[in-house]
Amino acid sequence: MKLRLAMIGGGQGAFIGSIHRMAAALDGLYELTAGAFSSDAEKSRATGVLLGLPTERVYGSYQELIAQEQQRPEAERVQVIAIVTPNHLHFEPARLALESGFHVILDKPMTFNLAEAKQLRQVAASSSRKLCLTHTYTGYPMVKEARQLIAAGTLGPIRKVYVEYPQGWLSGFVEGSDNKQAAWRTDPSRSGVAGAMGDIGTHAFNLLEYVSGLQVEKLCADINVVVPGRRLDDDGAVLLKLSGGASGVLVATQVAAGEENNIRIRAYGDQGGLEWQQADANTLLVRWLDRPAEIRRTGTGYVSSFAQHNARTPAGHPEGYLEAFANLYRNFALTLQADMAGQPAPPEALDYPGLEEGIRGMAFIENVIASGLSVTKWTEFTV
Amino acid sequence: MKLRLAMIGGGQGAFIGSIHRMAAALDGLYELTAGAFSSDAEKSRATGVLLGLPTERVYGSYQELIAQEQQRPEAERVQVIAIVTPNHLHFEPARLALESGFHVILDKPMTFNLAEAKQLRQVAASSSRKLCLTHTYTGYPMVKEARQLIAAGTLGPIRKVYVEYPQGWLSGFVEGSDNKQAAWRTDPSRSGVAGAMGDIGTHAFNLLEYVSGLQVEKLCADINVVVPGRRLDDDGAVLLKLSGGASGVLVATQVAAGEENNIRIRAYGDQGGLEWQQADANTLLVRWLDRPAEIRRTGTGYVSSFAQHNARTPAGHPEGYLEAFANLYRNFALTLQADMAGQPAPPEALDYPGLEEGIRGMAFIENVIASGLSVTKWTEFTV
Amino acid sequence: MKLRLAMIGGGQGAFIGSIHRMAAALDGLYELTAGAFSSDAEKSRATGVLLGLPTERVYGSYQELIAQEQQRPEAERVQVIAIVTPNHLHFEPARLALESGFHVILDKPMTFNLAEAKQLRQVAASSSRKLCLTHTYTGYPMVKEARQLIAAGTLGPIRKVYVEYPQGWLSGFVEGSDNKQAAWRTDPSRSGVAGAMGDIGTHAFNLLEYVSGLQVEKLCADINVVVPGRRLDDDGAVLLKLSGGASGVLVATQVAAGEENNIRIRAYGDQGGLEWQQADANTLLVRWLDRPAEIRRTGTGYVSSFAQHNARTPAGHPEGYLEAFANLYRNFALTLQADMAGQPAPPEALDYPGLEEGIRGMAFIENVIASGLSVTKWTEFTV
Amino acid sequence: MKLRLAMIGGGQGAFIGSIHRMAAALDGLYELTAGAFSSDAEKSRATGVLLGLPTERVYGSYQELIAQEQQRPEAERVQVIAIVTPNHLHFEPARLALESGFHVILDKPMTFNLAEAKQLRQVAASSSRKLCLTHTYTGYPMVKEARQLIAAGTLGPIRKVYVEYPQGWLSGFVEGSDNKQAAWRTDPSRSGVAGAMGDIGTHAFNLLEYVSGLQVEKLCADINVVVPGRRLDDDGAVLLKLSGGASGVLVATQVAAGEENNIRIRAYGDQGGLEWQQADANTLLVRWLDRPAEIRRTGTGYVSSFAQHNARTPAGHPEGYLEAFANLYRNFALTLQADMAGQPAPPEALDYPGLEEGIRGMAFIENVIASGLSVTKWTEFTV
Repeated sequence: MKLRLAMIGGGQGAFIGSIHRMAAALDGLYELTAGAFSSDAEKSRATGVLLGLPTERVYGSYQELIAQEQQRPEAERVQVIAIVTPNHLHFEPARLALESGFHVILDKPMTFNLAEAKQLRQVAASSSRKLCLTHTYTGYPMVKEARQLIAAGTLGPIRKVYVEYPQGWLSGFVEGSDNKQAAWRTDPSRSGVAGAMGDIGTHAFNLLEYVSGLQVEKLCADINVVVPGRRLDDDGAVLLKLSGGASGVLVATQVAAGEENNIRIRAYGDQGGLEWQQADANTLLVRWLDRPAEIRRTGTGYVSSFAQHNARTPAGHPEGYLEAFANLYRNFALTLQADMAGQPAPPEALDYPGLEEGIRGMAFIENVIASGLSVTKWTEFTV
Repeated sequence: MKLRLAMIGGGQGAFIGSIHRMAAALDGLYELTAGAFSSDAEKSRATGVLLGLPTERVYGSYQELIAQEQQRPEAERVQVIAIVTPNHLHFEPARLALESGFHVILDKPMTFNLAEAKQLRQVAASSSRKLCLTHTYTGYPMVKEARQLIAAGTLGPIRKVYVEYPQGWLSGFVEGSDNKQAAWRTDPSRSGVAGAMGDIGTHAFNLLEYVSGLQVEKLCADINVVVPGRRLDDDGAVLLKLSGGASGVLVATQVAAGEENNIRIRAYGDQGGLEWQQADANTLLVRWLDRPAEIRRTGTGYVSSFAQHNARTPAGHPEGYLEAFANLYRNFALTLQADMAGQPAPPEALDYPGLEEGIRGMAFIENVIASGLSVTKWTEFTV
Repeated sequence: MKLRLAMIGGGQGAFIGSIHRMAAALDGLYELTAGAFSSDAEKSRATGVLLGLPTERVYGSYQELIAQEQQRPEAERVQVIAIVTPNHLHFEPARLALESGFHVILDKPMTFNLAEAKQLRQVAASSSRKLCLTHTYTGYPMVKEARQLIAAGTLGPIRKVYVEYPQGWLSGFVEGSDNKQAAWRTDPSRSGVAGAMGDIGTHAFNLLEYVSGLQVEKLCADINVVVPGRRLDDDGAVLLKLSGGASGVLVATQVAAGEENNIRIRAYGDQGGLEWQQADANTLLVRWLDRPAEIRRTGTGYVSSFAQHNARTPAGHPEGYLEAFANLYRNFALTLQADMAGQPAPPEALDYPGLEEGIRGMAFIENVIASGLSVTKWTEFTV
Repeated sequence: MKLRLAMIGGGQGAFIGSIHRMAAALDGLYELTAGAFSSDAEKSRATGVLLGLPTERVYGSYQELIAQEQQRPEAERVQVIAIVTPNHLHFEPARLALESGFHVILDKPMTFNLAEAKQLRQVAASSSRKLCLTHTYTGYPMVKEARQLIAAGTLGPIRKVYVEYPQGWLSGFVEGSDNKQAAWRTDPSRSGVAGAMGDIGTHAFNLLEYVSGLQVEKLCADINVVVPGRRLDDDGAVLLKLSGGASGVLVATQVAAGEENNIRIRAYGDQGGLEWQQADANTLLVRWLDRPAEIRRTGTGYVSSFAQHNARTPAGHPEGYLEAFANLYRNFALTLQADMAGQPAPPEALDYPGLEEGIRGMAFIENVIASGLSVTKWTEFTV
């Protein structure tokens, strides 16, 4: 049986809402059943019509959605709520949903600030409901492969990690014209204390900790507002001290004119290194000290069970961003279904980002901005 | 409202059935409503259960499916039937479906032989129903872009086209072990007169004619059975004479050990040339005589309306095989919906492969095998 | 002691003369000592001055050069003569040089026609002098590696070989304007019976036979004159039957607008395949049936002795066309020096193209043009 | 007439000496005439024999070389001295050479410390002799093109520059075994205060300032000794503040296991960005805000006069590290020849690294090590 899914946010003009809907649809594990797509009831309804939802399942606010769905019979009631609103509207709907007995899929960064994130963890803990945070890039099969290779010690102890996420779409003052995406992402009242660091820096940070299996312990950030008039950072570079004595560099910028969404990670142990980038997402390059580098590929028989589990097509038929996103939805669904069946979920299904990743992401935002303002070189990473 | 979709074939162990289901699901334009997933009623039912279909919509044969769906009230009856069986089981279900008032989505190659293909065209003509043939690669946004660039004359008159589709999965005699995919594809009674040329040669041929806008007029083929014991060709190379005085080369092989699904096309006019390959599907490389080559990318603002219409994510978030496949489903749905609404479908929606492409594909198979057997250099391409 | 080198041809406006001079200079194994750089004595002298040669060693014709050098004392006399004239001026100087006791480095294709090539072999046989033919691409370290891998059987028996050499510089009728290179290469009286097939097809052919270790046994060619008014072929594609039951495709074109000198080879055995292209010359990609592809690189410690012998810099510092060219000069010099010392040359030094490769190249030209004119599919490759 | 060249250092077992000799030889502009290849007279002589030098021009020390060459008649005396010794042996020979009337080609980094570098500038100023510093990477044609594009304002004002130089060869404690290159480069008494930062960080720094046309004004460095027992840094990452309000990141590491010599630079203005890396040295990728990225290539007709001047072969025939190195030698020779002829050298010839680049490089070493030790975030870049 498909899981019944509701969506909060994701009306017309939104970017990430349709991504979530396609990700939910791809594997046939969810049925979009209800939604509060906008705080403007009229707009919410219009989106509902386009999506073919019955009018009684389209709500004018998230409060209404949660309240009314809660009163429906269990066999009909939605089971999972996806929240795809701007950052300042993450916490309240997520809290209410969890407290009201719904599982939650939440867009990143988890909340508006770290305090909210910690509070949400408490709410979740007492709710027995689960939360999935959509850090897309860890859904890629070859990112899974990278993590498994390192976890297995194949490269030796990791010494150095480089992660970067260059974009160019905020090279000009586009928030000055009619660009809804730019508008809220550069607005401190909706985005939080960080711009680029919150929007894409958290992705880079999550990718780094996920792949390397290490944690950031200290950081030293250069945080910039490059475009005149912008109210939040649009560029930054961060030196990192990692657990186990490793070090790293994180770069996130939205003013690298001409760059698309070129997120990339490299990690090196004493025996070899690996490299993955979204632009060639189905390839994991593994270099060795004294033998030829190798090209690991999605859809092959020799990759780890985690990489295989997260692929859908034979090698050479590329899988992309939507498939990576869908992997988060799928693994969350498989976990919930296992729970419902009273069975343990397989480790491959459990491998989706959740509350802990969300809290560390929010801590990253606060620490990196603090470091950017500091005249001292190293700032302790505190949570 | 979603289109109600039935599927014929695509039970467990099948490859392409799940691809069709994901492609149909991605955009929320179809609802999988019924199916005859296997000629073994028990297996069909088991697949239906897995897919969450009500048992009364899961049938033990395609005849049963068509007969019973036809008797359902119009508002409930399936509207489109996807046929994903081996080649020898394309024609009969497709004919019956069209004659019974259903639209058809059909896996390629269209039929078992050319005669069937022509007959199917006649059936379709008198049925007022439509047929979409899933030549996946023409669904890629950058393949659309390639076609549009050439059609606009940007490269000058096309002189030379190279297309190739190397695979390696049939390098050994895998049909001797338990490989269902290999078994039917190398079996003349299920695959037809051609192996590699039918399975992937037709894709290469379709891609060549689609992108270049030219037609094959003569061919000269070297057709080989490389692996001992194999009953159909697993390798071939073809010299081509194209309309307008151009020439080309088509390569299709399944014994290029280590190759995945590396389909690639290059076309050259007198002003420049273009190159696309599935391994880097979101890039179209355009070379010019006397200025820098350019890299056109999916999801950007500067590509043609056809390329934009067939993309879902911002530039840099890669789209892949499933998205290309889904574009066929989507364009077919948009065309049917426009028909139902009594409106003209936009040219971007109408741009999906159908009967004519299917007939030319079947003609390719017969001509290329004939040429392979001929001692004369050039064989006329006859339809 | 450096070998004393004379050059015939290579005056101002020539392309390949300066390439030969740089290749000869790179390793300090040759000293350019004399030259007949043009059949116009004035121009020859001007080039000699530019190159810093004493006037008495600059001659007005190759006959004069050979005659006068022969009369110099042995310790002063040139030892090797490089011939870098257009094709119709290869045979006579080469013959005379060999007969007069000089070793010869000869640009490809070896002669104007096959008969001359065979005659030259006879001349060489009775002269005890050696000849090196500058098929540049077999000088690349990773091409050496490719040959060694295949020779060692690592990929299994070779079944399929694809070789291609696309250029775009003759996309227009450039021989109509002041382009000396285009002029002679498209002139039957200077180039021979073939244009593209002689100029670059022979390179592709040589690369194929060198890397695969196989010989072409039959061919089927589509030979075209694409640009109106051109007097020799500027485009062709050839199906090949190779020794040992393998088959292949050879493509050579000079009208692929926008292409540079994109020579590429792929070969597949039953265990894996390899790919090399000049555009990424320091990489040899090796694919395997069931494990990750590997990237072999120039300058590493794991490559064969042949690849190591032909490299000069540590891995990652790219070596290019001039280094590949210089490898021919270097290996020829090492062979001659070993001869002079009465010692056997190591196999790595002996691995340079010579008379046999030249004869097969000339046979390729004649056979491929004959096949292009034939209405029968397969033409036997005769020498 | 060729310039008469002497070499100090570069005996057997040295790496860079043979690179210098090939670079000097390639274009026929220098004649290696004399040398003091080792401080061990016996070894020096052995190298001289191998190189075919007359014994009277092979010296047992640099002092001897300079003293004796100075006494030779001008027409015979060497004119340029290349110094290819370890860092601690740069200053004295360079000083003596300049004071004794010889031009100098000096390997980088210029001296053992900044004080020596400044002193050398004074010596040079009063000597009327010239110095070329072999920062190889600025010799690449596409690096020239990058600088010219930025200087012309094509990308808009530069805001962000990333430069990185990852190597892996010092991943283990190789200086503990018999590796002469590793031994001196990790020895403070021969290398100076920095290891990786001096050896390759200076290259990255030079490339950044050369391409961007900006200067480093402040830096914040994380400098590490990764391999236990090593005496100098083998890894570092540096945040940079650049002139004109730009910022950047510089990474240099010798413990990125599996990396070769993967130096890469990216720079972004408000209109576009560019990317160059040694691994694909003949390509300059230029990205734009709202149009396709373009691929600029060595050897084409559309690149700047600086890029054209520094190339030797037609597009598609790759040029590599030795050609880039040779460009430094060639431009220095052209400058000296123009001086000798009393003519102004063209700007393309004058574009080689010299004293100013050397001083800034030495300042980089001292500043970056100081910053690495500092607890304050930003260190002023002082010279």
